Amino acid sequence: MIAVRVIAFLKPGVLDAQGQAVQQGLEALGYAVERVRVGRAFELVLPEQDWEENVRRMCERYLTNPLIEEYRYERLGPAAPPAKGQDDP
Amino acid sequence: MIAVRVIAFLKPGVLDAQGQAVQQGLEALGYAVERVRVGRAFELVLPEQDWEENVRRMCERYLTNPLIEEYRYERLGPAAPPAKGQDDP
Repeated sequence: MIAVRVIAFLKPGVLDAQGQAVQQGLEALGYAVERVRVGRAFELVLPEQDWEENVRRMCERYLTNPLIEEYRYERLGPAAPPAKGQDDP
Repeated sequence: MIAVRVIAFLKPGVLDAQGQAVQQGLEALGYAVERVRVGRAFELVLPEQDWEENVRRMCERYLTNPLIEEYRYERLGPAAPPAKGQDDP
């Protein structure tokens, strides 16, 4: 088993209303931010065999909307044992 | 200006109902996945000065709920020019 992280953001041309809202919120708190994009992140634990092809298919079919979102994935290495509630900063 | 990516996931001990739902969805489609966590991703463009301290503060005060979420951030390098609608895979 390996762990893979997928990150999906709206494509650059697509209006990111959530990102604009977050940017306004941060500015209202006094932070200087020029741009904010908000996206989604997934961490998957899956078999190593054909992982890359499987991750791509999962992204295209289920995890993201390829029409308006772009995604990236990276292998994180062997999967950690199941979480035991520890803080892992 | 630099770009920073922030990723926030529920802490390991916190029930991730969304992750469970995604896992069931993927399994229903025939994919072998042992675990799925769903989180949020942010891409921020902000001034380089004190960026790390500012990002941490934004995370603690606004972007995440430190009680139930853990976050990581990484600097992505100099900010790209504003999006022009191009696809950037």
